[in-house]
Amino acid sequence: MKYERIYNFSAGPATMPEPVLEEIRDEMMNYKGSGMCVMEMSHRSKVYQQIIDEAEQDLRDLMHIPDNYKVLFIQGGATLQFAMIPMNLMKNGVACYVETGAWSKKAINEAKKYGEIHVVASSKDRNYSYIPDCSDLDIPENADYVYICENETIHGVTWPTLPNTKGHVLVSDQSSMFLSRPCNVSDYGMIYAGVQKNVGPAGMVVAIIREDLIRDGLDPKVPLYLSYKTHADNGSMYNTPNCWAIYVCGKVFKYLKSTGGLEAMEKRNIEKAQILYDFLDSSKMFHGTVDKAFRSLMNVPFVTANAELDAQVIAATKAAGYDNLKGHKSVGGLRASIYNAMPKEGVAALVEFLKTFEAENG
Amino acid sequence: MKYERIYNFSAGPATMPEPVLEEIRDEMMNYKGSGMCVMEMSHRSKVYQQIIDEAEQDLRDLMHIPDNYKVLFIQGGATLQFAMIPMNLMKNGVACYVETGAWSKKAINEAKKYGEIHVVASSKDRNYSYIPDCSDLDIPENADYVYICENETIHGVTWPTLPNTKGHVLVSDQSSMFLSRPCNVSDYGMIYAGVQKNVGPAGMVVAIIREDLIRDGLDPKVPLYLSYKTHADNGSMYNTPNCWAIYVCGKVFKYLKSTGGLEAMEKRNIEKAQILYDFLDSSKMFHGTVDKAFRSLMNVPFVTANAELDAQVIAATKAAGYDNLKGHKSVGGLRASIYNAMPKEGVAALVEFLKTFEAENG
Repeated sequence: MKYERIYNFSAGPATMPEPVLEEIRDEMMNYKGSGMCVMEMSHRSKVYQQIIDEAEQDLRDLMHIPDNYKVLFIQGGATLQFAMIPMNLMKNGVACYVETGAWSKKAINEAKKYGEIHVVASSKDRNYSYIPDCSDLDIPENADYVYICENETIHGVTWPTLPNTKGHVLVSDQSSMFLSRPCNVSDYGMIYAGVQKNVGPAGMVVAIIREDLIRDGLDPKVPLYLSYKTHADNGSMYNTPNCWAIYVCGKVFKYLKSTGGLEAMEKRNIEKAQILYDFLDSSKMFHGTVDKAFRSLMNVPFVTANAELDAQVIAATKAAGYDNLKGHKSVGGLRASIYNAMPKEGVAALVEFLKTFEAENG
Repeated sequence: MKYERIYNFSAGPATMPEPVLEEIRDEMMNYKGSGMCVMEMSHRSKVYQQIIDEAEQDLRDLMHIPDNYKVLFIQGGATLQFAMIPMNLMKNGVACYVETGAWSKKAINEAKKYGEIHVVASSKDRNYSYIPDCSDLDIPENADYVYICENETIHGVTWPTLPNTKGHVLVSDQSSMFLSRPCNVSDYGMIYAGVQKNVGPAGMVVAIIREDLIRDGLDPKVPLYLSYKTHADNGSMYNTPNCWAIYVCGKVFKYLKSTGGLEAMEKRNIEKAQILYDFLDSSKMFHGTVDKAFRSLMNVPFVTANAELDAQVIAATKAAGYDNLKGHKSVGGLRASIYNAMPKEGVAALVEFLKTFEAENG
């Protein structure tokens, strides 16, 4: 392979498009005649303003984001959003959460500090291997929002259809599926995503929020940085943002536009995941841990019959140049994260390797 | 100049060492045989753990940080620290702040949300053009800490000697002077710095905190991300950190070590600033805005007799390839930020330009 790069199945930070990395490399010493690297630019300069403006516009184009939604770039990861969401969106102090895996669980634990949390559905009974029925949830009238994690990175489950929120605001953590397929933004009050899984480098969240949810009058002890209004009123530059992440993500947005947008991306992602799932369904040694209807296109956890064999497979894949396939300890086994930037060839090569391993060790 | 780079006098993000940028460029497609870019690395991988460990160790070496201090890498900028500091360090709910410019003022305003704030000295009376006498401050017995901004980026003042805190914990914002000279860490309870001024890319703060100040038992509504203990207990990786900024800053730390450490850096910074201050002291057209004893080695604000002439100079410098010299609106005129990475030649060239401008327009 060019540059001797390997197939990297990391759950995040994760593999990025090679042409994007090449562009960044080529602009390192002097960005487009500005005489400086993007890392050296004043965020108040015209040249940087154009970078952030284009990044936002390209994202709006990709997702067809309606005009009454703000796009914000915020530091602190999903972990900070777990606090910012209740701090900003709770007016009545009541919210509903659906528990579908490790990440929604963390969101629930943090939200409990700020109000009355109703866990209205859970798949904990079978170690988060499915999405519970959310067609008729018991949602209190005064609930400020319903929260879901739309793709659980660790447990590998995704939502085939959105929950019936009965008219309440829907908030979704899309971190590990952001931009993997078309998204009807107006179905949501707020979407957010840590960009280090399916877009760019770690250290930034993209938040897409309906304007009427951004407000004054928060608890006076909410830090200035934790108010969405601070970011919305200042074009995500109340203080110096993660300028580099905005620059890199902007390049990925342009790359996605140039390769057919989210419709084409979804098609590629389905084809790609199918290669791995078809193998898992036909294998006698390996099997997926998630119910078929709820399988993620992005994170594919799978196991053998025992932990010892799992460990052997992981060691063998690593030695062969397929990195970061060890599953999270709460699921065990292996996990292949096959985000947008993982080429089909990478998945096909991994499957060939696993087939050979099974033939030789089965 | 190589790469046709310009002299960039931005107050931050700001100019970086060219050899560091070259290394980053060369490692973009494949970091040291890992088969991936640093932006693509799992923060839980061995290869990344080595990057963060070396960054911390090199910083410890540079600053001779004692073992009883933790080094933390936190997102959200100084703005988030303005809240985190009172949230974490206030036990009695009382703190003292010295008001010396725009940044200490912002810190004061945010801290007021969390406790009783005593502004124990201020230089507001002369638009923050000096550091007030802090040899005998009126500090309440139960004050949890005394807070200073050790170099005011906008107003261009710095502290020749630290305040007499009468035994209380000293907290210092060193953002715009971090690593510009040797620092006796044990004089402080906590030092922090947004790295986008004197080190690397925006999106990260380095916090150096004495271990006994890191504690449990915060207000239960403090977000998990805003507790220093969360970061300290997890080696700055409770959640995915700004991996890229840690990598880049680590390279700058190594570069500083290889060029003589902070002692050599201070010598170069004094020589460099002297060129500009000598000119300002001899010029009839330009003069510095700060009392001589408190002049910053990093940020040099200066003005002409009127705003119209200021604007002419700024336009002329920009056209000649000296960028980002416009002063902040609260001071007016010009400001040259001449951080560690600004070469002496850049300052000398600027001074020559200003001399010629004065000769032709004086």
